[in-house]
Amino acid sequence: MDAFRILEIKKNIFEGNDAQAASLRERLRKDGVFMLNLMSSPGSGKTTTVIRTIEALKDEMRIGVLEADIDSDVDARAVAKTGTRVIQLHSGGMCHLDAEMTAQGLAGLGTEGLDLVILENIGNLICTAEFDTGAAANAMILSVPEGDDKPLKYPLMFKVVDAVLVNKMDAIGHFDFDMDTFAARMGKLNPKASILPVSAKTGEGIGAWIDWVRGRVKKWKEA
Amino acid sequence: MDAFRILEIKKNIFEGNDAQAASLRERLRKDGVFMLNLMSSPGSGKTTTVIRTIEALKDEMRIGVLEADIDSDVDARAVAKTGTRVIQLHSGGMCHLDAEMTAQGLAGLGTEGLDLVILENIGNLICTAEFDTGAAANAMILSVPEGDDKPLKYPLMFKVVDAVLVNKMDAIGHFDFDMDTFAARMGKLNPKASILPVSAKTGEGIGAWIDWVRGRVKKWKEA
Repeated sequence: MDAFRILEIKKNIFEGNDAQAASLRERLRKDGVFMLNLMSSPGSGKTTTVIRTIEALKDEMRIGVLEADIDSDVDARAVAKTGTRVIQLHSGGMCHLDAEMTAQGLAGLGTEGLDLVILENIGNLICTAEFDTGAAANAMILSVPEGDDKPLKYPLMFKVVDAVLVNKMDAIGHFDFDMDTFAARMGKLNPKASILPVSAKTGEGIGAWIDWVRGRVKKWKEA
Repeated sequence: MDAFRILEIKKNIFEGNDAQAASLRERLRKDGVFMLNLMSSPGSGKTTTVIRTIEALKDEMRIGVLEADIDSDVDARAVAKTGTRVIQLHSGGMCHLDAEMTAQGLAGLGTEGLDLVILENIGNLICTAEFDTGAAANAMILSVPEGDDKPLKYPLMFKVVDAVLVNKMDAIGHFDFDMDTFAARMGKLNPKASILPVSAKTGEGIGAWIDWVRGRVKKWKEA
């Protein structure tokens, strides 16, 4: 069997995504599966972060990965090298995943026995934020080269997340990214979200992120 | 009068965007207005590039700018400082502009006497590529930190453009971006597109981009 497969998913025409998302979340809770929805712009470092997360947690929990993209399978191939169960989802040109599409992905992946499913969402700061996927938590990555003004331009994304990883901190000297400015903008939109500066490339700050994920998974399973 | 205004545009329900785009393009041709549609991910350097372009060309042609965003007016404010006529378009949460929305923007801006209109599209590699805006040419910016694999993941975007600016070349030493790999991927999808390495921050390579724009505007007016 191949390490991963490609699934062509179809858009759900049925309205009522919120109800479907709530139902999916409840089912996952009963099964003890914590699904983390990870969002960002293209090229912010999602796949590298997913691989770091798998490497840090794979000895203490069973992990599966949903890789969502418009096209290609490069991310699924990269994740598959870690030995983790992964499935590539193709969204049929759409820029978001809804709860039904995510449920199709989970069925394709097979969630039995898993503790953590990471959904690497499509690279996009707009559409992905509009749909509840049924995940237990939403996180996003903002990379330093993108700039500290992104909460002003894409407020919904920054409102719906429980944590923001500020990635590519190793390159901050090259860019005009001010962490205090960013934190102030984030504080206005969503003061409860955790802000975690990291470098997925060097590993800097990844420990705090792993603690965040571990704590959330534990709480989910106890609830 | 303020240097710019904010216009809330409404989605065009009418189908037949391609016909509307062709008609808008024909009208702009008769008026001698070259519209350049500039697309990219969030944070790739569109606004800095627009400002560089204005500074280089403002003494030889009359320029107007359409700034499209989900929210905020930070880009329009930045562009307005150059003294150029600019209007901020809010897309009502949508991730694309179609020809009708663009026409509303142009009407709000006022194109009389303009030679070049730069449409800074919404930060997005998916939806923006799906709609012909009526522009005379499409260009996109891929910034080095986003990675050389983006044509594999967002093929439509790379297919519809006439030029790709590879921006943030000043930071290439910090990232795993291989220009030959990128050019080979681009060559498979869209061999006719120009690839222009630039740094909008330092000005490196901007001359070649300006020559490209100037040549296109000239050809458009002569046609």
